[in-house]
Amino acid sequence: MFITFEGLDFCGKSTQVKLLKEKLVQLEKKVILIREPGGTQISEKVRDILLDKKNCEMHIEAELLLFSASRAQLVREKIIPLLKEGYFVISDRFHDSSIAYQGYGRGINLNSVKTIQEFAIGSAIPNITFFLDLPLDEIAKRRQKYGADNLDRIELSENDFYNRVRDGYIEISKNEKRFITIDGTKSIEEIHNQIINIVIQMVQNNE
Amino acid sequence: MFITFEGLDFCGKSTQVKLLKEKLVQLEKKVILIREPGGTQISEKVRDILLDKKNCEMHIEAELLLFSASRAQLVREKIIPLLKEGYFVISDRFHDSSIAYQGYGRGINLNSVKTIQEFAIGSAIPNITFFLDLPLDEIAKRRQKYGADNLDRIELSENDFYNRVRDGYIEISKNEKRFITIDGTKSIEEIHNQIINIVIQMVQNNE
Repeated sequence: MFITFEGLDFCGKSTQVKLLKEKLVQLEKKVILIREPGGTQISEKVRDILLDKKNCEMHIEAELLLFSASRAQLVREKIIPLLKEGYFVISDRFHDSSIAYQGYGRGINLNSVKTIQEFAIGSAIPNITFFLDLPLDEIAKRRQKYGADNLDRIELSENDFYNRVRDGYIEISKNEKRFITIDGTKSIEEIHNQIINIVIQMVQNNE
Repeated sequence: MFITFEGLDFCGKSTQVKLLKEKLVQLEKKVILIREPGGTQISEKVRDILLDKKNCEMHIEAELLLFSASRAQLVREKIIPLLKEGYFVISDRFHDSSIAYQGYGRGINLNSVKTIQEFAIGSAIPNITFFLDLPLDEIAKRRQKYGADNLDRIELSENDFYNRVRDGYIEISKNEKRFITIDGTKSIEEIHNQIINIVIQMVQNNE
């Protein structure tokens, strides 16, 4: 089973990814966590280019293609082989991030973004995608707490941008059955319980 | 004017690119040479990933997207601004290389390759493309002379691959008016004269 997590930065994805992994391990499942962009030797090198603050002159088309290249490698080198071996693959971000960030956020033609994503991911379509949704003011509070010095190139973008990205996720959720929107204002434990209940039900349906 | 050079490795492109540049400088034109992949800070970092022999596990989809990312950045950071300033931009390889190498050579769906190239290059369509064509046995001789130890990851590919790439270039030349096929077995000087005559005629037609 291939599970992806989506949402704005600081929405709590990474915490939930870890908690889900721990729970699945407790249940004696084989689990692999993947981070995007990255996750293979080549993809990590692409990640370095994408997140390096020195690369502020990066054009949005190059950005989209770099994310997609990193993902194309990750899919074929890791995700598909691991799924065939029966692993639960949990990814912190996947192709929906490109549609939300580069398409809705940066304003690249949506059809181009989607076509390139289809090419990049091939058969690796997530079975389920958890979208941790938070209002922008809550995200802004968490970002401030984190301190701007620690932010990477993409996290340094404007608030307008984040608004468009969030709207993008909401649009995707209307069209994709696999998308499950989670209220990110709830407690870590409440969110975790909601997620684990859905995953366990899907596992039982598959067995 | 945007001029690109295409052909198999060792076809003599780089020599001709330099000679054309020198001639245009003599004629008091503003000229910039560009190398592909590369040509900007970001594109050079992508080039390093593409040509590193350690990255032999690279999947063809990731390869195509990395070439395209490098190109997308080069187009927007350099090629389009320089063309607007009246420069002759001469590129050693451009998007036709992806169609020939990744499409015809590696066997990626041609429509996908072309769609991604259109996205990557935007409005930067070459005015003229010189395809230096050589029979495979002549290319093989030149490669041997160069010594296999000096070859990069892509140059280490098989002969079958080069056959498909050459056939790809020949196919492209049938459909693209801007494609001019040059007999690469001729002497350096003969080829140079042929190229410079065509370029000068195009300049005169534009004036």
